[in-house]
Amino acid sequence: MKALVYHGPGKKALENRPMPRIEQPTDAIVGITKTTICGTDLHILKGDVPSCGPGRILGHEGVGIIVETGAGVTGFKKDDSVLISCISSCGKCEYCRKGMYSHCTTGGWILGNVIDGTQAEYVRIPHADTSLYKIPAGADEEALVLLSDILPTGFECGVLNGKVQPGSTVAIVGAGPIGLAALLTAQFYSPAAVIMVDLDDSRLATARQFGATATVNSTDGKAAEAILKLTEGRGADTVIEAVGIPTTFELCEEIVAPGGVIANVGVHGTSTALHLERLWDRNITITTRLVDTVSTAMLLKTVQSGKLDPTRLITHRFKLDAILEAYETFAHAADTKALKVIIKAS
Amino acid sequence: MKALVYHGPGKKALENRPMPRIEQPTDAIVGITKTTICGTDLHILKGDVPSCGPGRILGHEGVGIIVETGAGVTGFKKDDSVLISCISSCGKCEYCRKGMYSHCTTGGWILGNVIDGTQAEYVRIPHADTSLYKIPAGADEEALVLLSDILPTGFECGVLNGKVQPGSTVAIVGAGPIGLAALLTAQFYSPAAVIMVDLDDSRLATARQFGATATVNSTDGKAAEAILKLTEGRGADTVIEAVGIPTTFELCEEIVAPGGVIANVGVHGTSTALHLERLWDRNITITTRLVDTVSTAMLLKTVQSGKLDPTRLITHRFKLDAILEAYETFAHAADTKALKVIIKAS
Amino acid sequence: MKALVYHGPGKKALENRPMPRIEQPTDAIVGITKTTICGTDLHILKGDVPSCGPGRILGHEGVGIIVETGAGVTGFKKDDSVLISCISSCGKCEYCRKGMYSHCTTGGWILGNVIDGTQAEYVRIPHADTSLYKIPAGADEEALVLLSDILPTGFECGVLNGKVQPGSTVAIVGAGPIGLAALLTAQFYSPAAVIMVDLDDSRLATARQFGATATVNSTDGKAAEAILKLTEGRGADTVIEAVGIPTTFELCEEIVAPGGVIANVGVHGTSTALHLERLWDRNITITTRLVDTVSTAMLLKTVQSGKLDPTRLITHRFKLDAILEAYETFAHAADTKALKVIIKAS
Amino acid sequence: MKALVYHGPGKKALENRPMPRIEQPTDAIVGITKTTICGTDLHILKGDVPSCGPGRILGHEGVGIIVETGAGVTGFKKDDSVLISCISSCGKCEYCRKGMYSHCTTGGWILGNVIDGTQAEYVRIPHADTSLYKIPAGADEEALVLLSDILPTGFECGVLNGKVQPGSTVAIVGAGPIGLAALLTAQFYSPAAVIMVDLDDSRLATARQFGATATVNSTDGKAAEAILKLTEGRGADTVIEAVGIPTTFELCEEIVAPGGVIANVGVHGTSTALHLERLWDRNITITTRLVDTVSTAMLLKTVQSGKLDPTRLITHRFKLDAILEAYETFAHAADTKALKVIIKAS
Repeated sequence: MKALVYHGPGKKALENRPMPRIEQPTDAIVGITKTTICGTDLHILKGDVPSCGPGRILGHEGVGIIVETGAGVTGFKKDDSVLISCISSCGKCEYCRKGMYSHCTTGGWILGNVIDGTQAEYVRIPHADTSLYKIPAGADEEALVLLSDILPTGFECGVLNGKVQPGSTVAIVGAGPIGLAALLTAQFYSPAAVIMVDLDDSRLATARQFGATATVNSTDGKAAEAILKLTEGRGADTVIEAVGIPTTFELCEEIVAPGGVIANVGVHGTSTALHLERLWDRNITITTRLVDTVSTAMLLKTVQSGKLDPTRLITHRFKLDAILEAYETFAHAADTKALKVIIKAS
Repeated sequence: MKALVYHGPGKKALENRPMPRIEQPTDAIVGITKTTICGTDLHILKGDVPSCGPGRILGHEGVGIIVETGAGVTGFKKDDSVLISCISSCGKCEYCRKGMYSHCTTGGWILGNVIDGTQAEYVRIPHADTSLYKIPAGADEEALVLLSDILPTGFECGVLNGKVQPGSTVAIVGAGPIGLAALLTAQFYSPAAVIMVDLDDSRLATARQFGATATVNSTDGKAAEAILKLTEGRGADTVIEAVGIPTTFELCEEIVAPGGVIANVGVHGTSTALHLERLWDRNITITTRLVDTVSTAMLLKTVQSGKLDPTRLITHRFKLDAILEAYETFAHAADTKALKVIIKAS
Repeated sequence: MKALVYHGPGKKALENRPMPRIEQPTDAIVGITKTTICGTDLHILKGDVPSCGPGRILGHEGVGIIVETGAGVTGFKKDDSVLISCISSCGKCEYCRKGMYSHCTTGGWILGNVIDGTQAEYVRIPHADTSLYKIPAGADEEALVLLSDILPTGFECGVLNGKVQPGSTVAIVGAGPIGLAALLTAQFYSPAAVIMVDLDDSRLATARQFGATATVNSTDGKAAEAILKLTEGRGADTVIEAVGIPTTFELCEEIVAPGGVIANVGVHGTSTALHLERLWDRNITITTRLVDTVSTAMLLKTVQSGKLDPTRLITHRFKLDAILEAYETFAHAADTKALKVIIKAS
Repeated sequence: MKALVYHGPGKKALENRPMPRIEQPTDAIVGITKTTICGTDLHILKGDVPSCGPGRILGHEGVGIIVETGAGVTGFKKDDSVLISCISSCGKCEYCRKGMYSHCTTGGWILGNVIDGTQAEYVRIPHADTSLYKIPAGADEEALVLLSDILPTGFECGVLNGKVQPGSTVAIVGAGPIGLAALLTAQFYSPAAVIMVDLDDSRLATARQFGATATVNSTDGKAAEAILKLTEGRGADTVIEAVGIPTTFELCEEIVAPGGVIANVGVHGTSTALHLERLWDRNITITTRLVDTVSTAMLLKTVQSGKLDPTRLITHRFKLDAILEAYETFAHAADTKALKVIIKAS
């Protein structure tokens, strides 16, 4: 089958690989119909993710059709249409039992990382019963691809952890796909204001179309000032960090209101300065989280009921044969205006 | 000044009464600009509220302008435009300190009940600093009249207690003003479905306009069956009782999903049967609440930011001189299609 | 093997039955070392539990040693010492995924009810990976038998649902084994007062030994009065119903403080009167729950660390050969002073 | 009257000062019977608290007897015995209304900081109705002095924010008075283990007497290793930082379990490194808080019911005349073994 394979920093290829096979009775083999590329895939390609070695098929998002199930799979059968969660969850371990699937002792984020992933014609999904979701009849597959990772990530790590409330003020630092996913799902809770911060005016324009009530271009280094002005000096009740570098995290520290929350979503490569000399008495909360995908079933309901339209994030579509071009497009988002690219695998 | 006075069961009159005066240093006198009539006022007129005796000026909702403040009032001054909370709160007692203003030991629901109320040209407001809210410049007074009682009641007793969540299923039994207020504010949380139940098709039509995803006319006694069908046999995650009689409460018991909540909003005059023989192992929660108006500041923000338009509940407008006609209109809602009537007092 | 078999209302026998066998790959066969009798077993024997038919081996509590596991069991192996949960949980269904194991679509309370139970030399445990718990080396088996059902039931349905807090006032109606289990686990949260109510002075004496700060014998019909006096007229913040009849539930309604919780634990056979005419404005919460056993791992830690000694509930010990005598002893608790009886099966 | 006055960095004196007078109708004048010295007073004396200028009477803890009340005080009268909260709260502002008294717009921590404090014969208490607590008849005054600040600080900032749970594992870094207050109140929730970390073996011995299940002397720089060993490699569910320097905060980052909380209590003078490159995917929470004293009434109940004995923290007693000696003793705790020193003012 065709698959996009990582060959060490800076190297990848679309090549032929053997079909995956059932290894455990709880596995399923899924024929991919649609997948996508994640910012994390670019991190891997930079060599920033040591757990992912050369030879690995990338990708941890996708929808498809089951072609085979192991003997222990009870919830799915051949020909079922399914959504693949980016997080594999055994449903049995201490972490899974408390809803922290991201730390599943035999799962977590393994797809396209320590086992082969979804940017291929077929993929093996471990713990299938608790890592796949049935796709409702008539559902929009492209919308559901975005429920594999980006929507639950923005929602769980940003919106839920950030405790967005009706009437509250939210600031989201970073208007890339994840920041925009947080923006879309923050609106589930009817905040009075959502301020988006980014360096790119084009993304900020998109943010306004997606419901941001104000936008701040932080190029001039005066974003904190601007946000405090927009919030009458108080700062934002919820601040969502969706970039992953010290500068943006420190901006979050400056703009969080007393009693507020900084919900980190960004993937960080270095430490940042935590200004406890200013924050120790501000009654704030900082959270970190690898998405648990505990909200996937709920997000499916919001999509089905029309409360959420994830397809607004889709800017480009490619066939699997053109996945190298898709990577180029996604990697050069400033030029291509790419948010999420859909890869049609069959 | 002119005032609507209760004279015992079935009797009321618009008459002249002396101006209220500051009695405690924490009092304020408010000149009413707009007020309204509540279902509770009709209860009083039926003689169902023993705490409210003859001679009482009715009304516990309204907006107006401060004409005088006691020496201890620090947050308001003459000429401030204010929203009057239906609940008076001292801010000091054990209940106020834990946000249960409804049980304030020197407040609670006293306006138009045990002290004179707002259906008059002027009213004395005790504990003014903690029972009034500043009206933002440019705000729509009519919208804010509905924040005195009906919106916080629907929201706190129904939606907050009912734990409405994104993607969840809500059933609201009773599509009168309170049920519709719950419907409007339930949508803060993006439920996947809101099913409204009533005997009156006209109110159900209004409910659909206000965002109900389905409606059930319960005249045929088969509402439970219909709701279970709409929810694939599960019942609703949140059931809001907005009528106040045994029949409707027992309907709620039939349609609540395992793990769900019945949030009672209705004012009940008799006991009801609680079917613990069916419910003991269903993991359900039942809540009761007199509105605390802890959400007033938040609701103001949702109105100001356009997330909530309470004026959709307004069907009629009268001058204070015509308040007897307003009562007739409101009391015969089946014929007049009245929801909330605005009384202009100045 | 020997097993205690239900033969219809009023009839049971200790008889020989075939060994259970693995039926599903997720099953385990456990050799019972110790089990016990639950009040629910007496309900079954009265014919009050229609789901449990003649021929059924009773019992849903116990500890033992695994003798065989199905091919799909990954967390346990032959010779492991295990605690059996009274609730079977698949770990996969919608209810299990949200921690409501009691409503597992292929589990819940099935042991000794719709499938054969633990009052036998061996038992088949479905969904073994998510329905058994490893017994730590050196643990007291008798203590752990009480973690199968009675401790999590008192804790989850009574204490957790009842929101017991440091400094709060708790009233527990019913000082039988379940009420006492709630008493023991309520003390995890350091309430200022725990008032126990019962008709039996002997059980109330036990309650005082177990930490009750006051006891009320309700024989004179004046329990509500006595409890209100003990709480300076406020009532209790948490009221736990651990009997299951209308009289005791209505007592709970009388003694709950404004803002308080009635946490129902009792198994009810009929409806009760809910006095909404008094409670609608009291801001109370009523909860029902079939135990989910989500707290089993946590309770194990409290036993291991010496914070909880469940063996205080054990009054009698029998061999499996004498289980009919054990039933007699347990069923006549007023005379025998029995709380929990341990049955040694091997 | 006699008062301990701050005269700039390193300088203080016991001197005569005029009696305080009622300035606002909501003020009360309290005759101090007992007060104490806080670590924060030492910070002021080092010149680290710019808001506190020369000439200020220090002290923000104490109990006493009311000698005069302003016209607006309704909850207290002359001769009432009262506990003084270290946080003044108006009960009216946005922050007070949501229980964040520490950020009261006209209060917060002002006593012995921006207005004169309690290390004197008399003190003026603003917002008296919402900043004083009645002392129950027969209560131990010395115990209650410790409810002014140190117990609510350890409890709210450490234990409540840290979400200590039955069966959980807690690590407290710093076994000074605040760390020990956290230790005492953590036990309200029956954690399975509480590990105390300090450089001083004497304080660690005290911690073991106070209920710590293990102690780690961090002098060798291997505390993280030791704690991970004690927790089977997982780390602690709750980590409480009770020192206030980068080294100890970074230790907390190393020892927090996935899904755990770092609750900061320490007063920090500089920024610290936040290792997001390790923590971004660990699902942790970090909290900061200036004590709100929302738990004071509850803590009073735990003291009255014998669940908490704060006097265990008292090591020395002095008369107000000897307060300079008291400061010496408290400032040289390593030598004197001082924890809290009681100053008898009358």
